[in-house]
Amino acid sequence: MSLSLAAARDLVARANRMIANEGVLDAFGHVSTRHPSDPSRYLMSRSRAPELVQPEDIHEFTLDSQIVKPIKERLYGERVIHGEIYRARPEVMAVCHHHAPSILPFCISGMKLEPVYHLGATIGAAAPFWDARDDFGNTNLIVAKPEEGASLARALGKNWIVLMRRHGATVAGRSLEELTFRTIYIARNAAVQIQAHGLGHVSPLNAEERRLAGDYNLQPGPVARAWEYWSVRLDKAEGRARTGRRSVAASARKLAAKRR
Amino acid sequence: MSLSLAAARDLVARANRMIANEGVLDAFGHVSTRHPSDPSRYLMSRSRAPELVQPEDIHEFTLDSQIVKPIKERLYGERVIHGEIYRARPEVMAVCHHHAPSILPFCISGMKLEPVYHLGATIGAAAPFWDARDDFGNTNLIVAKPEEGASLARALGKNWIVLMRRHGATVAGRSLEELTFRTIYIARNAAVQIQAHGLGHVSPLNAEERRLAGDYNLQPGPVARAWEYWSVRLDKAEGRARTGRRSVAASARKLAAKRR
Amino acid sequence: MSLSLAAARDLVARANRMIANEGVLDAFGHVSTRHPSDPSRYLMSRSRAPELVQPEDIHEFTLDSQIVKPIKERLYGERVIHGEIYRARPEVMAVCHHHAPSILPFCISGMKLEPVYHLGATIGAAAPFWDARDDFGNTNLIVAKPEEGASLARALGKNWIVLMRRHGATVAGRSLEELTFRTIYIARNAAVQIQAHGLGHVSPLNAEERRLAGDYNLQPGPVARAWEYWSVRLDKAEGRARTGRRSVAASARKLAAKRR
Amino acid sequence: MSLSLAAARDLVARANRMIANEGVLDAFGHVSTRHPSDPSRYLMSRSRAPELVQPEDIHEFTLDSQIVKPIKERLYGERVIHGEIYRARPEVMAVCHHHAPSILPFCISGMKLEPVYHLGATIGAAAPFWDARDDFGNTNLIVAKPEEGASLARALGKNWIVLMRRHGATVAGRSLEELTFRTIYIARNAAVQIQAHGLGHVSPLNAEERRLAGDYNLQPGPVARAWEYWSVRLDKAEGRARTGRRSVAASARKLAAKRR
Repeated sequence: MSLSLAAARDLVARANRMIANEGVLDAFGHVSTRHPSDPSRYLMSRSRAPELVQPEDIHEFTLDSQIVKPIKERLYGERVIHGEIYRARPEVMAVCHHHAPSILPFCISGMKLEPVYHLGATIGAAAPFWDARDDFGNTNLIVAKPEEGASLARALGKNWIVLMRRHGATVAGRSLEELTFRTIYIARNAAVQIQAHGLGHVSPLNAEERRLAGDYNLQPGPVARAWEYWSVRLDKAEGRARTGRRSVAASARKLAAKRR
Repeated sequence: MSLSLAAARDLVARANRMIANEGVLDAFGHVSTRHPSDPSRYLMSRSRAPELVQPEDIHEFTLDSQIVKPIKERLYGERVIHGEIYRARPEVMAVCHHHAPSILPFCISGMKLEPVYHLGATIGAAAPFWDARDDFGNTNLIVAKPEEGASLARALGKNWIVLMRRHGATVAGRSLEELTFRTIYIARNAAVQIQAHGLGHVSPLNAEERRLAGDYNLQPGPVARAWEYWSVRLDKAEGRARTGRRSVAASARKLAAKRR
Repeated sequence: MSLSLAAARDLVARANRMIANEGVLDAFGHVSTRHPSDPSRYLMSRSRAPELVQPEDIHEFTLDSQIVKPIKERLYGERVIHGEIYRARPEVMAVCHHHAPSILPFCISGMKLEPVYHLGATIGAAAPFWDARDDFGNTNLIVAKPEEGASLARALGKNWIVLMRRHGATVAGRSLEELTFRTIYIARNAAVQIQAHGLGHVSPLNAEERRLAGDYNLQPGPVARAWEYWSVRLDKAEGRARTGRRSVAASARKLAAKRR
Repeated sequence: MSLSLAAARDLVARANRMIANEGVLDAFGHVSTRHPSDPSRYLMSRSRAPELVQPEDIHEFTLDSQIVKPIKERLYGERVIHGEIYRARPEVMAVCHHHAPSILPFCISGMKLEPVYHLGATIGAAAPFWDARDDFGNTNLIVAKPEEGASLARALGKNWIVLMRRHGATVAGRSLEELTFRTIYIARNAAVQIQAHGLGHVSPLNAEERRLAGDYNLQPGPVARAWEYWSVRLDKAEGRARTGRRSVAASARKLAAKRR
């Protein structure tokens, strides 16, 4: 059932570019995936903007966030975010750390992020906050040391997103496709929550609705549908989708086939 | 007067892509049209993001929302939204269900959506709310059962849009062109209503103005003008509009001719 | 000094597309220019979305807003906005009517639009409101009758923009280039005024600053610089600007030469 | 270590286009760099929109803001902003003056701009205000006279950004890459500060965090990563990035090599 290593590298590179293409990642942030056959390793790009990440940029890391085969290029400074979450949460297969424009206002104001429509229910039971100040005092806010990563992983707990005060968010998923869905739709949910707040009243999903709607939307069908959409949009943005209906449809079919 | 089936499939596929290209639909939502010669059937895509829908994706459904010729691909889970509205409203020829970013804040806050400029008068007399909780308690918010679709259709009543709490909106029209116009301009109206609310005071059209302006804007002239615009923009986005004035004009003429 | 008729048609078509390409015009709205050699006539497109307007769509109209050589295609319903302003204001050489998303919140809320940065000083001394209700009671809000156009022109008075309640704005200029500059920068000014309002305090230019900054920015230099920018952006959007520095520069030079 | 003059012209032209491509500069504003081998001169474009600036548009200016080899084209009216800052601050190697939509609301409202996430810490210790009215009374707001430039440079002091009331901002850097990073991320920081303000509470970095995070992000690694990202995005926008992974990666490598 597991992907080949080559397919996993291709997929995690594509997830980086897809999430960037939807405006959630910019020059910074990163997406990783657990190694498809060795759960004690994860795959992540060398240091470069997610929108530019190609399969050949993807390297293997241990759960201590050490690169398996050293390279001369720079690595991401915040690798421990990924390593410590993979260590703490065996079921997590993919992690995204980002500074999305719609999520940051929550990280700055301390306002509670809540699922306000069904697609935002992928937040899960709660979106806890983590503040580097609590355990480490005044820092550069970068999560670079193993103990910082471990502290963040504890704050995440059994949830799927943790909001980092004055910094951004870290999101987890049981697959790259689920992670991509959750990352993008939580960002969309945040944007509409801000607008609803401006209208004076926010009426979120209740606990049962968020559980039911979260389960529904994370089924293979909805997740694959969204993945195909963002994937074709990426192809268009990268100039790979040609004109005319035939080629777009063909490209979509090819993508769908790859994922099977 | 009625379109051929092939032309109707082409048109409903195009309406999906046009509304998506204007930012109202994303990975989710769907546009359908009543069958051009059999009012007991409607035409809708198999399950895929509206921006990707091609004529060959369009299938026939009964008003019970059963597919006429079963296929192996997934179908939309919320087909009953369409089937129940076509059943309840014989004059409705097209339906769009969406989660537009400018509409959701109303669905979340409960703020009344009102026509605040003449093009928003296509809302009609009222934009009622529907809450799945009222009839069905806590659900995943998906309108998948016939009784849920029927409940939503009752909330729509004789209106042209119904706002679904914590979910999105469903819009109806007497043609695909009218539906497209209403869907996009209500989303635009919602966005400016939110901004006007932020300035402290919203002064909407009164009842007579909304009736007069709604009637004016839904005449064939304005509707065709907007359709041409969104259609050429779609062609550009899909790489079909070539450079230079001649080809753009030619493409527009061809589209106009198709619609006659 | 005056343009040839062919050059004027080309220029007014391009101004339509440029202002649309900057997001100020959408499916509706229109840009006209006074006839370059006959001040009793003006040039405007037949009815189509401004982004699509080509030189061959431009026709001549009398100041009564009658077309000089009748055509079979539809004409804009609100031609009298243009005709009545050209009649009332001999120095006005170009007019734009639009429903820009940043301007509408002022038209809806009644909030006073003010120059809040130097480029917004092109508003001029004041941005008066006009409400169709005052002279005509409840209407469809469309300015289609000569007396409606004349009422609007009176509300404009000696100013350069008039805000139409629940409808949009009409802007005037002493040339197409000046009109384009004023139209776009007033829309930008409105957007930042809304954001500044959200921060709790708006401190606009005072009367002398707005006069001095308005005069400075409407000099030929700044106006030509902005026109070149929007023009090259239009060329890119229409696929006419090729890759590489040489061709973009060449295209810009050609545009600059045309305008001399 | 210093760049050749040709490379510096290329780089400053590219920085103009990159910052414009990210939406911070529009028809107005400008980016300059100090001459790579003669600290008493700086390099800046003749008067044209930053998005259009090519290496051949770049000319040499003295610190009095006089062009070294006169040309017949127009020059920017606000050259003294650059000249006076280079004179007052020997370590400054690059300057950008702009009117970014997210920065203007601070210039209009007088709201304090603060680093609200780590990437905004590039603001530095403070973002002081300057008001032309204080020293010069009512003006056209244009900083065109040497004494106006000198007054602005005094307000900037030892900081890296100065907010100009009812006008825009001027940003300084120790290299073009640092300037580009600071300019874009301060604009992003401003946008999320506005949104956080709308949620009711802004909790900025404290003094030690802003110093530590500012130092971290302005290291060569993060700055080069962001530069590569904006540079490849510019290439895409200008039609120079071809389809497929190979060419994008090649183009990125070439850019990285150029900067070494």
